[in-house]
Amino acid sequence: MSAPYPDVAVPRERWPVAVLGATGAVGQTFVRLLARHPWFRLAEVAASERSAGQTYREAARWLEGTLPADVASLRVVPCDPSAVRSRIVFSALDAAAAGEIEPAFAAAGRFVFSNAKNYRMEPDVPLVIPEINAAHLDVLPVQRARRGWAGCIITNANCAAISAAMPLGPLHQAFGLERVFVTTMQAVSGAGYPGVASLDILGNVIPYIGDEEPKIERELPKMLGRFTGDRIEPAAFGVSASANRVAVEHGHTVNLSIGFERRVTAEDCIAVLEAWQGDACARGLPSSPERVLVLDPRPDRPQPRRDVDTGHGMTSIVGRIRPDPLLDVKLVALSHNTIRGAAGASLLNAEVVAARGAFMQ
Amino acid sequence: MSAPYPDVAVPRERWPVAVLGATGAVGQTFVRLLARHPWFRLAEVAASERSAGQTYREAARWLEGTLPADVASLRVVPCDPSAVRSRIVFSALDAAAAGEIEPAFAAAGRFVFSNAKNYRMEPDVPLVIPEINAAHLDVLPVQRARRGWAGCIITNANCAAISAAMPLGPLHQAFGLERVFVTTMQAVSGAGYPGVASLDILGNVIPYIGDEEPKIERELPKMLGRFTGDRIEPAAFGVSASANRVAVEHGHTVNLSIGFERRVTAEDCIAVLEAWQGDACARGLPSSPERVLVLDPRPDRPQPRRDVDTGHGMTSIVGRIRPDPLLDVKLVALSHNTIRGAAGASLLNAEVVAARGAFMQ
Amino acid sequence: MSAPYPDVAVPRERWPVAVLGATGAVGQTFVRLLARHPWFRLAEVAASERSAGQTYREAARWLEGTLPADVASLRVVPCDPSAVRSRIVFSALDAAAAGEIEPAFAAAGRFVFSNAKNYRMEPDVPLVIPEINAAHLDVLPVQRARRGWAGCIITNANCAAISAAMPLGPLHQAFGLERVFVTTMQAVSGAGYPGVASLDILGNVIPYIGDEEPKIERELPKMLGRFTGDRIEPAAFGVSASANRVAVEHGHTVNLSIGFERRVTAEDCIAVLEAWQGDACARGLPSSPERVLVLDPRPDRPQPRRDVDTGHGMTSIVGRIRPDPLLDVKLVALSHNTIRGAAGASLLNAEVVAARGAFMQ
Amino acid sequence: MSAPYPDVAVPRERWPVAVLGATGAVGQTFVRLLARHPWFRLAEVAASERSAGQTYREAARWLEGTLPADVASLRVVPCDPSAVRSRIVFSALDAAAAGEIEPAFAAAGRFVFSNAKNYRMEPDVPLVIPEINAAHLDVLPVQRARRGWAGCIITNANCAAISAAMPLGPLHQAFGLERVFVTTMQAVSGAGYPGVASLDILGNVIPYIGDEEPKIERELPKMLGRFTGDRIEPAAFGVSASANRVAVEHGHTVNLSIGFERRVTAEDCIAVLEAWQGDACARGLPSSPERVLVLDPRPDRPQPRRDVDTGHGMTSIVGRIRPDPLLDVKLVALSHNTIRGAAGASLLNAEVVAARGAFMQ
Repeated sequence: MSAPYPDVAVPRERWPVAVLGATGAVGQTFVRLLARHPWFRLAEVAASERSAGQTYREAARWLEGTLPADVASLRVVPCDPSAVRSRIVFSALDAAAAGEIEPAFAAAGRFVFSNAKNYRMEPDVPLVIPEINAAHLDVLPVQRARRGWAGCIITNANCAAISAAMPLGPLHQAFGLERVFVTTMQAVSGAGYPGVASLDILGNVIPYIGDEEPKIERELPKMLGRFTGDRIEPAAFGVSASANRVAVEHGHTVNLSIGFERRVTAEDCIAVLEAWQGDACARGLPSSPERVLVLDPRPDRPQPRRDVDTGHGMTSIVGRIRPDPLLDVKLVALSHNTIRGAAGASLLNAEVVAARGAFMQ
Repeated sequence: MSAPYPDVAVPRERWPVAVLGATGAVGQTFVRLLARHPWFRLAEVAASERSAGQTYREAARWLEGTLPADVASLRVVPCDPSAVRSRIVFSALDAAAAGEIEPAFAAAGRFVFSNAKNYRMEPDVPLVIPEINAAHLDVLPVQRARRGWAGCIITNANCAAISAAMPLGPLHQAFGLERVFVTTMQAVSGAGYPGVASLDILGNVIPYIGDEEPKIERELPKMLGRFTGDRIEPAAFGVSASANRVAVEHGHTVNLSIGFERRVTAEDCIAVLEAWQGDACARGLPSSPERVLVLDPRPDRPQPRRDVDTGHGMTSIVGRIRPDPLLDVKLVALSHNTIRGAAGASLLNAEVVAARGAFMQ
Repeated sequence: MSAPYPDVAVPRERWPVAVLGATGAVGQTFVRLLARHPWFRLAEVAASERSAGQTYREAARWLEGTLPADVASLRVVPCDPSAVRSRIVFSALDAAAAGEIEPAFAAAGRFVFSNAKNYRMEPDVPLVIPEINAAHLDVLPVQRARRGWAGCIITNANCAAISAAMPLGPLHQAFGLERVFVTTMQAVSGAGYPGVASLDILGNVIPYIGDEEPKIERELPKMLGRFTGDRIEPAAFGVSASANRVAVEHGHTVNLSIGFERRVTAEDCIAVLEAWQGDACARGLPSSPERVLVLDPRPDRPQPRRDVDTGHGMTSIVGRIRPDPLLDVKLVALSHNTIRGAAGASLLNAEVVAARGAFMQ
Repeated sequence: MSAPYPDVAVPRERWPVAVLGATGAVGQTFVRLLARHPWFRLAEVAASERSAGQTYREAARWLEGTLPADVASLRVVPCDPSAVRSRIVFSALDAAAAGEIEPAFAAAGRFVFSNAKNYRMEPDVPLVIPEINAAHLDVLPVQRARRGWAGCIITNANCAAISAAMPLGPLHQAFGLERVFVTTMQAVSGAGYPGVASLDILGNVIPYIGDEEPKIERELPKMLGRFTGDRIEPAAFGVSASANRVAVEHGHTVNLSIGFERRVTAEDCIAVLEAWQGDACARGLPSSPERVLVLDPRPDRPQPRRDVDTGHGMTSIVGRIRPDPLLDVKLVALSHNTIRGAAGASLLNAEVVAARGAFMQ
């Protein structure tokens, strides 16, 4: 995806990694993104007992593009630390399974990079977008100590929360958020496969996504909070979210109305977002986009179908930054929900952890 | 559509009416709704000079259903009071034409029921949803006196503003609005025909509709304002609007976050909306729906494709009334944009005016 | 739906009927169409053991419009003749269940009107579109005698086959078909609910529907065949079918290329189809449309979204009748797949049987 | 796109080229494909008088991706050989303009690679898919001599005809076609921009595309015909086409029923198509895909949304090769309509002509 990262001590052989929940929609996105990864080698695919023992080709109904041949022939193993040897583990498990499986892997000394919601809100579990809050990774020794784990869990947020966080992160750092109204228009791929029935969404809007609004409302302040030395302290601003499903394949579009702690203009925001490049630790990694955030000055952008693949799905697009009659500014943001908002997010987190040397110890 | 209106003095012959801008998309909706109207008879179709002299069948590219045979053979006349004889005139003109043509008709003694934006915000021009603000019609004598018109202009609002106004009207009357955040997901039919290009909207969201947000932000307070005896005084609450186009045929869905002058719960709002039937003067008219507002308790409603035709497109559907973490309540509302939000709105306004006896004088 | 049927001996009380497989998508369409039926009263809803004992409201995830209140509270019974008392039974069972259940009901003296494919091709089972082949019902005594059933099974065809049969029936009667190429573009509702995943069909075409092409190829000749006194003899023409799924809610569109036993022009076909009204026995029944077939002369019709509801979904629309460079004529036909192509078809069949007096015996 | 072409004498500087009709949808596709072309440099953009003098950025409403900066600042010139200097000219003109402009350029010594329909059926104008009929380019001396042109016109076919020709070409060469039934499901991008109105196609099928069926019926035999030394003689097989528009962005899907001069099985066809690589002269060119034709064995492929970008839009996908009950075989084919079916086709034609050395003379 982008330039090399000269200072990372990458092993001569790529690090072997496993994907938990590898047969589902998010699991497949992991498989696709790992197919030609320069640092990680997909060594193991784990799934439910039902699939274990089958080849990956047999177990997964492959959805997009071509199933990489070397993965196709891998035998699926159970989601159990005794069956999975990789130290680096990507979890695409659903919440019902993640609650028990992820801590078992962490206890067994594995680095678990998780998409599941279960541990996101724990004060000693980082909820990471590395361009915004890589410093939250410093909570990991606390997590290990407190829980007695040899490994750890590192989470990424709900896909719609990430869409909103991408512009809100730098704006909060610059001006201090006070309150945010978020309305989402979310792609069907966010619901997995088969997911949303066509009879439900063709020519339609579904103004509801189960449990989505509370996730957005609580994950945003945590992501933009700070590490106190002891825990992640959520930021003090409030969030009101309204979530909608629309007939879009990929890309969650969010409309934001934003109030700051002090008076801020649209021009102020544009200046901050144009200058922002995110934490230096997240630049130049294999999954880093050339530009974390692109401001599109056209009046009718971003648009999911046309813009979602910018930066291989890792770039967020922001547009329509304009005054809000009731707060400070309104804007529109877009991120790719299965890449920047899910599998790509976990991968980037793992790359940052790798770049810090954690996997060499 | 609904029950008779026993007290209206309807002439033995139905009142002849004209549609200005009859060949466009809104004009066609007028034609369709007037096809079997019990009080009004579509006597004249007027359009631009280019179409004048043709039959309506020749001039209009008919879009939905069957073109009524008696209308098909009408000769199109120019939009000029000297060419149009009907005293009751429905205007589907676009803004470029309405600015001059509508006052010419009003000056010539005609009742102009207008969808155009030009005169909506004039303090002496009512912007009417009769269930909510029929009392604003009392400004008409002021309008006539001030402008020296023998007739008058009566407007209805932007289609997305109407979607939001339907639940906000009764809530404002009950509790007093302080501020409202409106995010819209609007159907393509709101842009007329050919309107939105399929390449722009298939599998996509366009987070922008030209001039739509200012209309919503200023028309809502005017609709919910009061007649002072001298002018329509807008209500004091503030509105922030974000407008989006989605791949839906008919029906504008709005997400609202609402703050009141005092603390109000979701249950308070549900009680008010369930009880509300709108101003008595708007009941039992030919275009009145059986129920002005329907509360749908299902968690994922309203949905445009499934709910938009409720009450022949004149009923608004409201759902998901729930607490807002930053204000008082959030909810979702839906109205049919070309019926309740355009042609049906004008028609209902004309029926209310008829029921008040204005056309008998 | 249409005019009364003066000669039918309808009982003072409407006939009680049952729907088998009542909770699925086709079952729900039966429930909706029966809601205000003048002859039939939905007395029983039957479904799998899993649902039995629940109320219908609990057992069915109701999909379209409002669930009729009197049906909502019905207790679901098992699909067993000992649990179902109605003599008239509509089967919306899938093929896996229909194979055993339908003959059990027929043996038990019930009239089974079936949508399932299992018995369609049996020589002693009529495959009925009453406007076209009501005479095939004369095979029922043979069926009863041969199988030793007190009751009988009467089937209707695959929904795409019906779309093609509507114009082909009268054309075959007039000119004799020799060969037909059928290409379908089928709505997602044909796959039931949840059916087609939105990720599979948004902005897409799926050029395959499992087992659909063979059904079309064999059911068309049977429907247009004749009763020999002993069996239904399929007509001798050949059919080649290509089936596609498209992003349409309701309505199967078919493109036909038709060769006749002798030279036939487009004008010949237009004349036949314009004059055709179908077998007199199918006119004036509760589910009969005013017009069985409508020829639309516009060059770009029929279109599913705009035309599918013609005649409450029981009218077929035919357009683009034109010469075929290789055979005789090409044309386009459209029918509503869940009404004319499924539940409405069964209902009309039952009405014809009722009108023949069968239920009075 | 693919490997170098070692034997072509490419000038040190890339050849300058012009696009006629550069501001429309097809023109923009040319601009995009030429942006980083190794042999051609987009030196001139020509459009109607109305646009002439503006920069390209001003004149074109850029539709997809990022407008290349060096093109954005080009001044638009009129479509006149006296205003355009490039010897190599790509024509994206519509038929109304192409009839006069293209011969003027050919007369003035230019190589005109045309998408327009005007000259496609002339016996001395090649209609080229170079993998299939590069030998037709040998008619160019005849064309020049007969018409007295210093330059020439080289055309490519209608986009739907190309979708069908890709598999039919090798099958005709192997077995000899007798008759073909083609039913198309065509993407909206085939109609340009704004093109198909969203109100016409959302949730719909339009079973008609103006003048499309005759083009398919006559262009296919010409493409698969042979050069007699004097003219292009169309092949003798017959074609019947039915054209439909569907709600797909890019990619024309065709269903084919194919009869050969002798008995041919599905397996025969699979063997031929798997082995086929097209004329050697079309391999290894900048626009050549790695594989001209891909056979997808999955039962439900090809699908436009998922497969259209294979080989950067230059690869055709073929699937569902199976017996036809009336002829020999049925199959489904897909090509990208604006790339393989339009701008990419012209570009590949120009590359083949370049590789023959024609531009060095």
